[in-house]
Amino acid sequence: MVQLIDGKKVARELVDKVKQEVATLPSSPGLAVILIGEDPASEIYVNIKRKRCNEIGIVSYLHQLDSSVTQDVVLQLIDKLNNDPKITGILVQMPTPSQISDNKIMIAVNPKKDVDGFNPINIGNLVLKKEGLQSCTPRGIHKLLKYYNIPLQGQEVVVIGSSIIVGNPVAQMFLNANSTVTVCNIDTKDLKMHTQKADIIVSATGKKHILTADMIKEEAVIVDVGIIRENGKIYGDVDFENVKDKCSYITPVPGGVGPMTIACLMENTLIAYNLQNGGEK
Amino acid sequence: MVQLIDGKKVARELVDKVKQEVATLPSSPGLAVILIGEDPASEIYVNIKRKRCNEIGIVSYLHQLDSSVTQDVVLQLIDKLNNDPKITGILVQMPTPSQISDNKIMIAVNPKKDVDGFNPINIGNLVLKKEGLQSCTPRGIHKLLKYYNIPLQGQEVVVIGSSIIVGNPVAQMFLNANSTVTVCNIDTKDLKMHTQKADIIVSATGKKHILTADMIKEEAVIVDVGIIRENGKIYGDVDFENVKDKCSYITPVPGGVGPMTIACLMENTLIAYNLQNGGEK
Repeated sequence: MVQLIDGKKVARELVDKVKQEVATLPSSPGLAVILIGEDPASEIYVNIKRKRCNEIGIVSYLHQLDSSVTQDVVLQLIDKLNNDPKITGILVQMPTPSQISDNKIMIAVNPKKDVDGFNPINIGNLVLKKEGLQSCTPRGIHKLLKYYNIPLQGQEVVVIGSSIIVGNPVAQMFLNANSTVTVCNIDTKDLKMHTQKADIIVSATGKKHILTADMIKEEAVIVDVGIIRENGKIYGDVDFENVKDKCSYITPVPGGVGPMTIACLMENTLIAYNLQNGGEK
Repeated sequence: MVQLIDGKKVARELVDKVKQEVATLPSSPGLAVILIGEDPASEIYVNIKRKRCNEIGIVSYLHQLDSSVTQDVVLQLIDKLNNDPKITGILVQMPTPSQISDNKIMIAVNPKKDVDGFNPINIGNLVLKKEGLQSCTPRGIHKLLKYYNIPLQGQEVVVIGSSIIVGNPVAQMFLNANSTVTVCNIDTKDLKMHTQKADIIVSATGKKHILTADMIKEEAVIVDVGIIRENGKIYGDVDFENVKDKCSYITPVPGGVGPMTIACLMENTLIAYNLQNGGEK
């Protein structure tokens, strides 16, 4: 019998824990969000993040920039926020317009304020298994698997999608847990050959129903990172209706990975605050 | 018919190129090597590195420390070298004794002098595909594959071993080239299941003949990073005698990856010099 991985519940517990800790701080953490352009999905995310901040006691600052903004202007804003003591976390909502280099943005954010964990030093620290600011979605996924006592060591893991935002760091976290990890991408010739042998599959492509029931083995664990909006409905990467009868655990969309990403962002904002105020965590 | 990948030849060309560039510099690059304890294999490597430095025009400085040295003493030495302008590259010969945390060492080395590419910022830059100081052995492997026009995009790659020194960064380089990458480790339950489907196999375990002919498919490309000394003879991870009749390309041990690691170290020392002297490369 399949078990639904309840991201809402696990995220709620984490948010409550962060809220309690924030209440004990001498000042409020401040999260600056930079939103470029008018992508409706991004606006939804940004609103959820703001709501969660308010609830927890984190002051949120929204910097909304025109879609035609130059990279220099964005970098200047990041520099200002890097040096603003009331800002303890900085987040640039991805994706950004084509004139902006995501990598340049990632490098520009002060590593101690880098609540997305995209600065090279934070990416490197993850590889070196050093505590610090780690990318929110992969961290959320690992918290979910841990919550449901799903073993990782020696497990066959397939990650579909190799983006710097999800696929790459999530693969790194499985490597750190001594899983055997296969990372597939758009050039992979035979995706099914890999997925049908996997104990755990993380799909992060944003392609509706790229993972179907015939591609997985019985009792696999399925983590769906995709969020695709189509005619007012939300779909994941996974053909949920058919896959759910074959796998052992599955994250629904919505209500699976999504809430954990937000909750981990809140936790990261607390960690960043502590990093800037002499704390270790 | 198998083709031997001639690491000596490719390394020689790279060393000659570096030598020519070093001759045009206003001052000599300086490479500090920290050798802890008396591991015979490490001493051999350090001697080869010194010889190559002399040949190229890089001044090499050997800091030989007792095997019982404390981590603090090593970190103090690194700090001194970080601040010494005549030292443009710093290398700590791995492995180090158990009282020394390799990760702490990697974090301590000035990223611009980090000729091994182990500092988190350099590891992160590799993930972000940013030019800079990259780990020598993986870089050497990629140069070899490029030299022999072996395609990477869409290829099935299996990396055996997930160390921070070789397995992890070599996997990252294949990801950057849009290969489908599987990283196996000591907990992998069925190594053969993976290797027999691979177009390219990189073995970096240091276990004699862990890869045998029955484990590979016809025409696979085999890269052997292992160097095992036994009764005065040198072996690789790969059962060379039997594998060579089945694969399309193979690196011999010795004379394959080894010389490329040293040549890339020389190139990195030049890159580091340029980084510290305002150059872009």
